[in-house]
Amino acid sequence: MSEVLNLAKELILRASVTPDDAGCQALLAQRLQRAGFACQSLRYGAVDNLWATHGSDGPVLVLLGHTDVVPPGPRAAWASDPFVPEVRDGVLYGRGAADMKGSVAAFVVALERFVAAHPRHPGTVALLLTSDEEGDAIDGVRRVAETLRERGQRIDWCITGEPSSKRKLGDLLRVGRRGTLSATLTVHGVQGHVAYPEKARNPIHLALPALAELAARRWDDGYESFPPTSLQLSNVHAGTGANNVIPGELQALFNLRYNPHWTAARLESECEAVLRAHGLDYSIAWHRGGEPFHTPEGPLRAAAREVLARFAGAAPEESTGGGTSDARFLAPLGAQCVEIGPVNASIHKVDEHVAVADLEALPDLYLALLERLLA
Amino acid sequence: MSEVLNLAKELILRASVTPDDAGCQALLAQRLQRAGFACQSLRYGAVDNLWATHGSDGPVLVLLGHTDVVPPGPRAAWASDPFVPEVRDGVLYGRGAADMKGSVAAFVVALERFVAAHPRHPGTVALLLTSDEEGDAIDGVRRVAETLRERGQRIDWCITGEPSSKRKLGDLLRVGRRGTLSATLTVHGVQGHVAYPEKARNPIHLALPALAELAARRWDDGYESFPPTSLQLSNVHAGTGANNVIPGELQALFNLRYNPHWTAARLESECEAVLRAHGLDYSIAWHRGGEPFHTPEGPLRAAAREVLARFAGAAPEESTGGGTSDARFLAPLGAQCVEIGPVNASIHKVDEHVAVADLEALPDLYLALLERLLA
Ligand SMILES: [Zn+2]
Ligand SMILES: [Zn+2]
Repeated sequence: MSEVLNLAKELILRASVTPDDAGCQALLAQRLQRAGFACQSLRYGAVDNLWATHGSDGPVLVLLGHTDVVPPGPRAAWASDPFVPEVRDGVLYGRGAADMKGSVAAFVVALERFVAAHPRHPGTVALLLTSDEEGDAIDGVRRVAETLRERGQRIDWCITGEPSSKRKLGDLLRVGRRGTLSATLTVHGVQGHVAYPEKARNPIHLALPALAELAARRWDDGYESFPPTSLQLSNVHAGTGANNVIPGELQALFNLRYNPHWTAARLESECEAVLRAHGLDYSIAWHRGGEPFHTPEGPLRAAAREVLARFAGAAPEESTGGGTSDARFLAPLGAQCVEIGPVNASIHKVDEHVAVADLEALPDLYLALLERLLA
Repeated sequence: MSEVLNLAKELILRASVTPDDAGCQALLAQRLQRAGFACQSLRYGAVDNLWATHGSDGPVLVLLGHTDVVPPGPRAAWASDPFVPEVRDGVLYGRGAADMKGSVAAFVVALERFVAAHPRHPGTVALLLTSDEEGDAIDGVRRVAETLRERGQRIDWCITGEPSSKRKLGDLLRVGRRGTLSATLTVHGVQGHVAYPEKARNPIHLALPALAELAARRWDDGYESFPPTSLQLSNVHAGTGANNVIPGELQALFNLRYNPHWTAARLESECEAVLRAHGLDYSIAWHRGGEPFHTPEGPLRAAAREVLARFAGAAPEESTGGGTSDARFLAPLGAQCVEIGPVNASIHKVDEHVAVADLEALPDLYLALLERLLA
């Protein structure tokens, strides 16, 4: 059995549902310490984070990952126990196989080989792991990034091992992510009886034109490979169920996925300008889920493109689509970020899996990147 | 103690919360039978209805009322037991005192005096009572009206005893009511993730412009003394609570209060035209709560105006405002309808009451109307 397959299985055996690390990071820290890394555990609340470095000064290359997994759901829905790794027909099954214990195992194996081959490499190579990527992401990389910022830690490049490939290992290179911004809006009216609308102020009627304007707005036409910024109303609730009562307030939740044309602050003020223009009496709570990041052409993208083309046999699609990832927290420190990982078709589903051949190729792929950038 | 006060107290003692008549109608039928009325109990489902007549042929004058009351709420909120009538400082307290056991008692006393004084009056005088005016109003006057229609029963005039007066007994004569029409609308979309709006169809976004158009529409400018037709959205619900999920559907309830410019059928087709014009995939369930009715100038309005002016000392305001009443079910039979009853300030509230002086004036007031129309 290969080294990376063995380590991935060890990690899957540890049932680390967010935010429980279940001993994954201790196992990995032990190996990296043996390889000469300086390891630091940063525990915030119920969340474990690991910061392991080798080398000094710049440039600094960080491999970024998470040890937590999403809950497996009912055991009976799986062909085999989600926390007992099993290889069938050349495929490794288990919760986290693709998202992202396979990549994390490959990171560690690649780092061991890299420092063994290049004990005096220039700059610094680091591994950053959290056990809260799938959850609230409050005490995970967000908090670690604050700590690193306070320490003045420089980060030049970041490679996240999130499962980014679509059909074939290496067919997609993620070079950015949209930002995410959420709002909880309450529109205040005056309750009354539907027979006497003149004595009430119907918050549904008041809110409709403003919400329609927000929903219809075309925010931009995209940004390089980013799709256009999009606002989606996910929830609207008003009324008691009775059809003869005008309710006193309306609540709406909406979310913006936005490209680097925008900052959260500018979007907030644009949205509130619409609400004010419609004369609404409202309260709003904003939650900034993460600014967008974008890695322009440069050494990291060039290296990644070349290495992926070699492994996949064709130049990768370079994309900024998809949801969010923890790279959003490191990008504001000045890091250029890319995401490279296995095929994502089975993530967050039953019978999550990764092809053993892909898993075994991953350490070589990451090692090739480390050598292109730091050797 | 006066006869009407005594009878009103007897009725209040019977805790007839909708649809329970609690023996009120039997008590009244017994008295009316003794006075020479033909009484018929029409029980539909859990609802008691009483149809009592005296005389034959036309014209037919119906006194219309209900024996049910709305729930009193917590006993502790009342100064005295809501089902134990109590007179304090010249005011009778108890659930139903104003809405409308006082009027019902006055109807019966007036009818007894009328047939005693005019045993061979022309036409027919009738009393129609239900125990489901405050509830669903399915098995009450709506059903009785169907039965009367099938029998070919003629009705010329209807006087409802609903508490219509504002500050002083007789200061308002209700000569019509708006119609009421309710809709339960479901707008169908396709569920998805907020990060991938192009793969979903957001039913909130689809519905907003159509709902905004319905809410903003000016349906008419009123009709004689009717206020303008009004559409009010009372409920809008969409979303699971999660802010990253585009919901699969949106549900909205709305209600129209409309004047005789419109029929329910025409309003339904106008609303659906708006929904279709916006390209919505929707389903809708309509509930016709009652067509509007309007009593134009004629013998009933003239008699009512004169009698009220005599009792109140000034000509009454002639109004078509307010909610709905059971008169909506008799008007389609060709009946001219007016509503005349005590001051409504305390109805549906704690410490519901009627001034004893007003209560004692009511039989004379109704008797004066009976004599103007049928003697
Ligand atoms: Zn992940
Ligand atoms: Zn009533």
